Order: sequence, then structure tokens, then C-alpha cells
Amino acid sequence: MRNVLIRIEYDGTAFYGWQRQPGRRTVQGELERVLSVLCGGNITIDGTGRTDAGVHALGQCATFSGEFSIPADRIPRAANGLLAENRMKQGDIRILSAEDVPAGFHARKSAVGKTYIYRIYNAKNMPVFLRNYRYNVKKQLNTDAMIKAASFFTGTRDYSSFMTASDDFRGSTVKTVHAVNIREEGRDISIAVTGSGFLYNMVRIMAGTLVDIGTGRIPADRAVEIAAACDRSAAGHTAPAQGLYMAEVYFSTDDLVKGTEKY
Amino acid sequence: MRNVLIRIEYDGTAFYGWQRQPGRRTVQGELERVLSVLCGGNITIDGTGRTDAGVHALGQCATFSGEFSIPADRIPRAANGLLAENRMKQGDIRILSAEDVPAGFHARKSAVGKTYIYRIYNAKNMPVFLRNYRYNVKKQLNTDAMIKAASFFTGTRDYSSFMTASDDFRGSTVKTVHAVNIREEGRDISIAVTGSGFLYNMVRIMAGTLVDIGTGRIPADRAVEIAAACDRSAAGHTAPAQGLYMAEVYFSTDDLVKGTEKY
Repeated sequence: MRNVLIRIEYDGTAFYGWQRQPGRRTVQGELERVLSVLCGGNITIDGTGRTDAGVHALGQCATFSGEFSIPADRIPRAANGLLAENRMKQGDIRILSAEDVPAGFHARKSAVGKTYIYRIYNAKNMPVFLRNYRYNVKKQLNTDAMIKAASFFTGTRDYSSFMTASDDFRGSTVKTVHAVNIREEGRDISIAVTGSGFLYNMVRIMAGTLVDIGTGRIPADRAVEIAAACDRSAAGHTAPAQGLYMAEVYFSTDDLVKGTEKY
Repeated sequence: MRNVLIRIEYDGTAFYGWQRQPGRRTVQGELERVLSVLCGGNITIDGTGRTDAGVHALGQCATFSGEFSIPADRIPRAANGLLAENRMKQGDIRILSAEDVPAGFHARKSAVGKTYIYRIYNAKNMPVFLRNYRYNVKKQLNTDAMIKAASFFTGTRDYSSFMTASDDFRGSTVKTVHAVNIREEGRDISIAVTGSGFLYNMVRIMAGTLVDIGTGRIPADRAVEIAAACDRSAAGHTAPAQGLYMAEVYFSTDDLVKGTEKY
């Protein structure tokens, strides 16, 4: 019985999110369809995280197991060929790498953390070509205020101020965020959040709150209270899906630490 | 009776091209729908050029006339609001500017030339985020050979080697190309073609032929014959739609000359 880990990039625009759903085009569904062809059998995959409709990935991970003969290093090219729209145009999912891993290794359970990046385009007008890939914030952002506020959104604490409540949520709202790094490059502003665990919409609510602080809609000195409130209504708006990227998954604390500096 | 000129940017991915078609989403159809709301009447527009499905525009132009009261400079913002997908996401068409022009001024008939840009990403692998916006050429391109060949694709001559034949074509295959400029920036290669007139698929066939020369599939020294053959089968393949951008329309020869240097 083999166990294979794949790393995946995708443009989330045309998907109903990650999770397989009957009759809908999802990332998991597309990958399972293509991997089943290559492996000659019914393949089901476990992803590190479920992304919502419109959310992208630069390095989502997934594991799957079974009996099949295709060498792992031939999977990316073969799968990407099957995922292509036509001979002249690649698909909106790309397998970046595939490797055999020991039995028991699991894309979600073996992960020790991940980095999400939230991308903002801060200008009055944005080229249409970025509409699926950035949140266009028209008001000028005070990034100094955002950076200062972001320092209060780290550590091991209850993050329920940054969670969209859902009926089926079970588990702890205490998570560890290792770093929230804000970088500015011309009109592009990125917010990279590296943590060991994330609540539903956590990065999008953090990003929206930081935007509200950057525009002055929320006073910067309220960041401490917001984090401490453990109440969604204390935080800012939920930033839209198209700005969010699952950037990297870490399977060792060494890589996790490196990630906090890299992004 | 007012006559208004608009400049338009669009992402051609989700459109069945420029031209209005019943029951299909087209750029002209969307613009007419929105302008009719703003102008309080049935507006029809004349575009400078019809772009095919998947082809983009950085500066398409169109004119429309009628009796309406909205000031021209308020049209872009109002139209772009109506074109938006939702409050958090802009649309895939953006009106860049609008201005009143004299009666008789016509987006197509008054134009003296235009520039198209064809964009290539030259690398074995391309991020999925560029799939709708670049032609991914995997083999390394010899841009020196391409630049040399491109010099034979200019001037006033019969360009029928670079035309997809169509039954309803009437008119001359003699056109003037003022410049074919090839620029390289890392993995991005752009081919800018500035001319006074273009045949159907002319830029895409020129780009495909230059790619075939760049990969060595067509010997570089055949460029002269290809141009002189006046025969589509002498040229290379038709490069795919997603790499093509209508970049700028010129209404004066001064601007046309500037365009040949700008791109």
C-alpha cells in the first residue's frame, strides 16, 4: 500500500471551493477524477485544509493511498496534462510535486502549521486583470498602524473574535499564530499569517479588521480589545475570498519557523 | 445630439468576444446594457475593433450617440459600479475614460491605427494565475532570431500569409504595419504590433510564426519568404486567444508614431 503526498497550486475563481460536492466543480473533485485515471482505481484524497469558493492556493497539500504503479515523480506532468483546458491552455489546478511518504503520514493530521497570504491592491482603481486575485481597497491604508495592530493578533490565545460562527463547530477556539507579517510593494499589500491552527474565516476577518484599522474606520488602539473580546462583533469586516491564498503547509517545526521569516 | 467616446479595459476570459449576440455574454452587450441604464434610453455602441472570445483589451475604444444628460466624466464611475460583480469585487469590464467628441467622430472610422500586444510566458511551467493572460511556451525561445524575423513583418504590403480566411471577407489584404516590437522581461515576452489595419487573426498568426521561429521549428531565414508568400500555409501556427491584448487606439498620426516607441 503506497501513500503519496502532493503539493498543489490552484486558481479558486471557477471552483465551488475545495470539498467534493455532487454535481459541482470542486478542487478535490477534479483532483480525484484525474488521479483516479492515472492510478487506475478510485482515489480519494485528504487535503490539509478546505478552502472556500474563490480562495486560491500556492501550496495546498493532500495525501492519498492505494495500490498503483505510476512513479510519484511522473504524477505532476501526467495529471497537469489531464487537467489542461486544451492543448494551448493549462488548467486552473497544477500539481507542483508528488512524493511517496511513510504509511500514516497525513496531509492534515501530520501538518504542524501553515501560512495564508491575504493580498490587497490599495489604489482608487484596479486593472480588471486583478479582480479575481486581490481585494481592491480604494482608501489609502496606513500600513504603519496595521503593522502595529497586527502584533496583537499573534500568540496562543482565544481567537473567537476572528471566527464566523457555525452550528457544527466543535473544538477549541484557542489557536497559536506565530506571525502576522505585512509587506508593501507599490500598491500591493500582503498580510501573511502563519499559525498552527485556524478558525473558520480567521484570516479573512483578520485582514478585514486590519483594513478597517488602516483606513481609520477602527481606531488602531482598539486592536488589543478586539483580540481580547472573544466576540466576532468586536472585529472588522470579513475581507472577500478572492484575496486569500493558502501559501504553504509545514510538516516540521523547522519549516514552520522558516515560514514566519519567508512570508 | 451628443457623441461620446469611451476607452475600455476588459478581461476577455468570460466573454463570447466583443460583438453583441443574443443570449450570450459579450463585451458590447454588457456595455450597451449598462450605458442604456445610465443614459435612460437604448444605447448602441460602435467599437474600434471586434475582439474574439478570450482576447483582452487595455484600451479598446467605442463611440455612441444620443440625447442624455449624464456628464461624460461621470460615466466611468457610474458604469463601473453597475458592472461590478458585488460590493467587494469589480467587474471584468472597466471604463477608463469618457469624453464628448464632435459629431461624426467614430471609434472605428476615425481611428488611424492601433497597437496589439501578444504576451508569452516562456518557461517549462507557468503559475495557474496566468493561464488566462499568457501563452505558455515551454521551449526556450531565441528572441534574437524573433526580433530579426519581425523586421520583415512590417511596412505596407499584402499580409494574407497572416490571415485566417473567411467567406465574408471583402476588402484589401494590403495593410501597413508600422512596428513589431519584441520585449523580454524575465520569462515574459511581449510582441507589440502597431499598424493602420489588421486582417482576421493577423497578430495571433504573426505571434505563432515568431514563436515557431524562436523555437527553431521554422528556420529564421524563412521570414522573408513567409511574408512574401501571401499564403496562410507558409506561416506558423495561430497563437491562442488568451495572450492577445488590444492595447491602444490612435486617432492622430502623432499618437500613432508615439505608440510605435511606447510599446
